[in-house]
Amino acid sequence: MELNELLERQTLAIELARKAGKMIMESSGLMDGVVDEKCSFADLVTESDKAVEKMVFDEIRKQYPMDKFIGEESANNMDEWSDEPTWIIDPIDGTTNFVHNFPFCCISIGFTYKRIPCLGVIYHPHLDHLYSAIKGHGAKLTKSNGETIDIHVRPCPSLSKALVVAELGSQRDEAKRKCVFKNLESIGWASHGIRSLGSAALNICSVASGQLDAFFEFGPYIWDICAGVVIAMEAGGYVCDTTGGKLDLQGRRFIFASNEKLAKEIADKLVVQMDFKNGEK
Amino acid sequence: MELNELLERQTLAIELARKAGKMIMESSGLMDGVVDEKCSFADLVTESDKAVEKMVFDEIRKQYPMDKFIGEESANNMDEWSDEPTWIIDPIDGTTNFVHNFPFCCISIGFTYKRIPCLGVIYHPHLDHLYSAIKGHGAKLTKSNGETIDIHVRPCPSLSKALVVAELGSQRDEAKRKCVFKNLESIGWASHGIRSLGSAALNICSVASGQLDAFFEFGPYIWDICAGVVIAMEAGGYVCDTTGGKLDLQGRRFIFASNEKLAKEIADKLVVQMDFKNGEK
Repeated sequence: MELNELLERQTLAIELARKAGKMIMESSGLMDGVVDEKCSFADLVTESDKAVEKMVFDEIRKQYPMDKFIGEESANNMDEWSDEPTWIIDPIDGTTNFVHNFPFCCISIGFTYKRIPCLGVIYHPHLDHLYSAIKGHGAKLTKSNGETIDIHVRPCPSLSKALVVAELGSQRDEAKRKCVFKNLESIGWASHGIRSLGSAALNICSVASGQLDAFFEFGPYIWDICAGVVIAMEAGGYVCDTTGGKLDLQGRRFIFASNEKLAKEIADKLVVQMDFKNGEK
Repeated sequence: MELNELLERQTLAIELARKAGKMIMESSGLMDGVVDEKCSFADLVTESDKAVEKMVFDEIRKQYPMDKFIGEESANNMDEWSDEPTWIIDPIDGTTNFVHNFPFCCISIGFTYKRIPCLGVIYHPHLDHLYSAIKGHGAKLTKSNGETIDIHVRPCPSLSKALVVAELGSQRDEAKRKCVFKNLESIGWASHGIRSLGSAALNICSVASGQLDAFFEFGPYIWDICAGVVIAMEAGGYVCDTTGGKLDLQGRRFIFASNEKLAKEIADKLVVQMDFKNGEK
């Protein structure tokens, strides 16, 4: 795909991300809006998730009627992912935070062509921070004062000096609990500390912008990380599977780290692996 | 102590908190500034902790030479806590975040008279958020745009609907590890989720301002929570020991919750208690 086609899509994505941000800010904290619990009592969906996703997809379709769409709330349409130009979005990443009015959630808009993530826009409305990247053209943060800066991961010599972000997540089955806690224990005590912020996309941005050193998780879907992959890679980060191998965007497990050595060190210390492709959920 | 004496001290505390915030912002992220590891490799002290504490105490001494002082960096002067007017501060709460430039740290300035916390000022310089409270006169947040609002905890019917903040902490001995993980597991799966932000004082402010529902921890010292106690209580929160009993400010364990029922529910679910007064550290 030509750069100008990506730039055009980026302009639209940024405009829609800011519009979505306004919708998020207007309804944040309204526990009444919870309409569904998905895989557990902690896995929430709200009217706002659905409204934001519809708004974004409707607007994109007007300009790009031939593009494909994958969204968290639009049923299980994962099969649609193909070589075609495809928008992959999470309308509100960090829904639990959103419901609780904890100011750490975002909209995540990713775009793939030939199944390669090539455009990512993530907007954190509470801080008015807009992260964006086009493959091969660097990662940027536009701050609330309008200033746009290049972002980069920061150097981190080893896990023992790293501040790592990890989440309990909203799945509560026994296998997932074990995976979460055994790994949290292993990584937690080997690092400077663990932070849990409740938004995969913003966690990735925190690594990409040099605030945190690494993020790993089992369970998130392609819409949670698609935009983040572009931003993290363009910020100089290293992205891989939890075993240290090649990332499978649909594999529902990953490590984002500021460098390869750190990512491999984390992979070595993940004592329980889960394989979501072979039936486990 | 008369209200006007407290108001005068509050004005000074706010002025010094903002001055300290400037110092924090100027040196945040300078890993070179780490000068000491306290109880473990994850327990950091920086030149900035020391410089901020000295500045604040020096300035207060000029106006209140008879007041007493307890600070995190000024050696183990816990014994000085008495009925006298006493300033109790943590110059940088969230030092690990500070060192890593993760924008979630603060200065915490508390003040006790007759061993009762009666004034608290907590300043989060990255967001320019200033929390303050005087016992009996409400809790306030002054935002970056200059607006000052009253803050309140929010209703939360039960732990199963609560977003809870908890930390691994920087102590890494076996007893503490066990305490942290057993409790994290117990509370984590019973709640909507766990967040870990790395600053006890800001965690308390998050509960006080209705962003999170509860915070519990084993290990923090009086300077980590003294200012927060006033802010949380004045915001309508409930503060107690991890057993659900009366809070001992020097007991190094606590629950801050939005209401008594939630605090008691958490106390019931804390499966491992640690007693720091009987020799454990």
